[in-house]
Amino acid sequence: MPTISKRGEQMPPSPIRKLVPYAEAAKKKGTKVYHLNIGQPDIETPKPVLDAVRHSDFTVLEYSHSAGNESYRRKLVTYYERFGIKLNHQQIIVTTGGSEAILFAFMACLDAGDEVLVPEPFYANYNGFAVEAGIHVRTITSNIESGFALPAMEAFEKAITPRTKAIMICNPNNPTGYLYSKEELSVLKALCLKHNLYLFSDEAYREFCYTGEHFSAMNLEGLEEHVILMDTISKRYSACGGRIGALVTKNQTVLDAVMKFAQARLSPPSFAQIAGEAAVDLPLDYFDKIKAEYQSRRDVLVKMLNDIPGVFCPNPGGAFYAIARLPIDNADRFCQWLLESFSYEQQTVMLAPATGFYATKGLGADEVRLAYVLNKEDIRKAMICLSKALEVYPGRIVVKEEVLEKGH
Amino acid sequence: MPTISKRGEQMPPSPIRKLVPYAEAAKKKGTKVYHLNIGQPDIETPKPVLDAVRHSDFTVLEYSHSAGNESYRRKLVTYYERFGIKLNHQQIIVTTGGSEAILFAFMACLDAGDEVLVPEPFYANYNGFAVEAGIHVRTITSNIESGFALPAMEAFEKAITPRTKAIMICNPNNPTGYLYSKEELSVLKALCLKHNLYLFSDEAYREFCYTGEHFSAMNLEGLEEHVILMDTISKRYSACGGRIGALVTKNQTVLDAVMKFAQARLSPPSFAQIAGEAAVDLPLDYFDKIKAEYQSRRDVLVKMLNDIPGVFCPNPGGAFYAIARLPIDNADRFCQWLLESFSYEQQTVMLAPATGFYATKGLGADEVRLAYVLNKEDIRKAMICLSKALEVYPGRIVVKEEVLEKGH
Repeated sequence: MPTISKRGEQMPPSPIRKLVPYAEAAKKKGTKVYHLNIGQPDIETPKPVLDAVRHSDFTVLEYSHSAGNESYRRKLVTYYERFGIKLNHQQIIVTTGGSEAILFAFMACLDAGDEVLVPEPFYANYNGFAVEAGIHVRTITSNIESGFALPAMEAFEKAITPRTKAIMICNPNNPTGYLYSKEELSVLKALCLKHNLYLFSDEAYREFCYTGEHFSAMNLEGLEEHVILMDTISKRYSACGGRIGALVTKNQTVLDAVMKFAQARLSPPSFAQIAGEAAVDLPLDYFDKIKAEYQSRRDVLVKMLNDIPGVFCPNPGGAFYAIARLPIDNADRFCQWLLESFSYEQQTVMLAPATGFYATKGLGADEVRLAYVLNKEDIRKAMICLSKALEVYPGRIVVKEEVLEKGH
Repeated sequence: MPTISKRGEQMPPSPIRKLVPYAEAAKKKGTKVYHLNIGQPDIETPKPVLDAVRHSDFTVLEYSHSAGNESYRRKLVTYYERFGIKLNHQQIIVTTGGSEAILFAFMACLDAGDEVLVPEPFYANYNGFAVEAGIHVRTITSNIESGFALPAMEAFEKAITPRTKAIMICNPNNPTGYLYSKEELSVLKALCLKHNLYLFSDEAYREFCYTGEHFSAMNLEGLEEHVILMDTISKRYSACGGRIGALVTKNQTVLDAVMKFAQARLSPPSFAQIAGEAAVDLPLDYFDKIKAEYQSRRDVLVKMLNDIPGVFCPNPGGAFYAIARLPIDNADRFCQWLLESFSYEQQTVMLAPATGFYATKGLGADEVRLAYVLNKEDIRKAMICLSKALEVYPGRIVVKEEVLEKGH
């Protein structure tokens, strides 16, 4: 029997999905599971977006242009204009989800053995795409005390090697919810210019910012040839299953290279390009409502988390994720225990252990990621479950502030 | 400015699409261009397949399971049963087009520097996926005189090195239309068992066989752990834009590895999975009509080609492609000249130079690939154009049989 590749062995399994069998078992026992573990929004896909597909009247489901339908790319030009990003449609390559934009950027810009620097914790699938491209993700640790702000410039400088070809951020961030400021982006700009690096900017959650305005890497003046934007309609319009994203850059050499990768796989999906095109025509106040909804969920979640003894959760500035520090011995064990051994009024909660978002061993062992993709009532119930769970979890530890309280 | 990767440089541009600007220029001059250059069928996508999407009534366009919707995979089990291929739904991973199935197989089974053996001429995008995976396509030449039958076992034996990990075929073949026999597959089985190789079988055109029954590599007894099937709904149901394919194998280790690649990119497109599921429910005589249509087109095309002095076209057994040898100096020059400098009654024809389907330099220089994806009337007109073109093409050469005729 032939063996699989080393790459196939090294490919990391999804850290988020490994708890799925325990959740399924809990449901079989009749336990209601609140899913705060994955970034699948519960918000309805806007009706005009789905209707555009349902009312389409073509007779042959043809390949589109490898870069995506020109009509859609021209529409995206007007979308980006709203953020002061001036493009022509040939600077946009429509991809199969944001995932493919990431893979194309890795493939077109880095060779096997090259390195991309990413602040950790980070979106775990970057690891998978790195293995596929044969490159290395090197991390600079951000920490929960600062709310996961950008690490200091010196930390990046120390991590840069002759193989470093790019810095990558997700802004606002998955998994931390941190919203990078214009000043932080300027630090990255200085680093990229000094060391001749690409800046990969994953801006999937651009519209969901609560503590300030989003500043896109595409608007960094003088860095036009360095910046590659990875984008997607997945979270923006609750259209994850469409698998439509985009790679955007002003660097013509990169565009030419990426087009060859795009041609090899022929075209991005046709149905969801129709959906994506209709989405750009949604009334501009569409995001006001969605953003207000996410923001009020965040407020409930973060307050209830911080009200639980021993729990600390910084207030995330964007996206729909938060990372909380819990008074526990081991996040993987705790999250499994929640599904396997705990229930409160026949309910429990599914969380993502933060260990899966760190590359540095040992980090994230007392942290979990929570995606606030449930309505507020469910979030409240889920937080009550979590609170009750922490009262009885056998691996509960006593944290410093509690010791201090007891000392007084 | 940072440089792109060597991989980005090495990535081959699409050999089929490089003539597109010349076609566009011809059309601007008012010339009608008959497109025989690409495998985009003109046949309508079956209405029930499109209607399944158009009548869908979900409210959130969610991620599907990374392996594809379970309901679709279970439906595919019944589809494969029709060909005597017995599977369970967990042996099927739904992919984003057949393209992704190929890339996943390359990534999961081969490491950088490993080799896959492919009879040439072959589907050019295998090259692109090979560059992405860092592997090498090594070719064994098949020839037009034998109708592109499988090269002799000895030719494979000679080409196998310690780095060879797989043999890959497309059956029936793109670009040659050749339908491999059960006996030829048995030769490949013997080779794979002897040298412990995977057999990658791209069966995108399974239903379109005219000279015999299709024999799937999945039905090679005793080779279950070696065979990986790459499949797609694109050509079968004229659904190229759906981007739905499948990787199918009974090798559990490969399935486990491929699942990790599938999880990294989250899920295949949701809309077209609905289309694919509906397609399995089409009446079984659907293919009778489509097959009869393609077969009658093939008959017109091949006869008219062989009636042109100096042209030779073997009768393809399947798919909707034929390769013809033309009395020309250089296929790339000729195909460009057809668009740039020729027209007959304000019409011309666009062909794919066969050079793009060979890895061995110099081969295919007097061959073109023709995709019979136009109706018979258009094929007739296109063949008249081609005939007229060959009368006046400045690079026309005199071939042996013509010399013989003149000698008599």
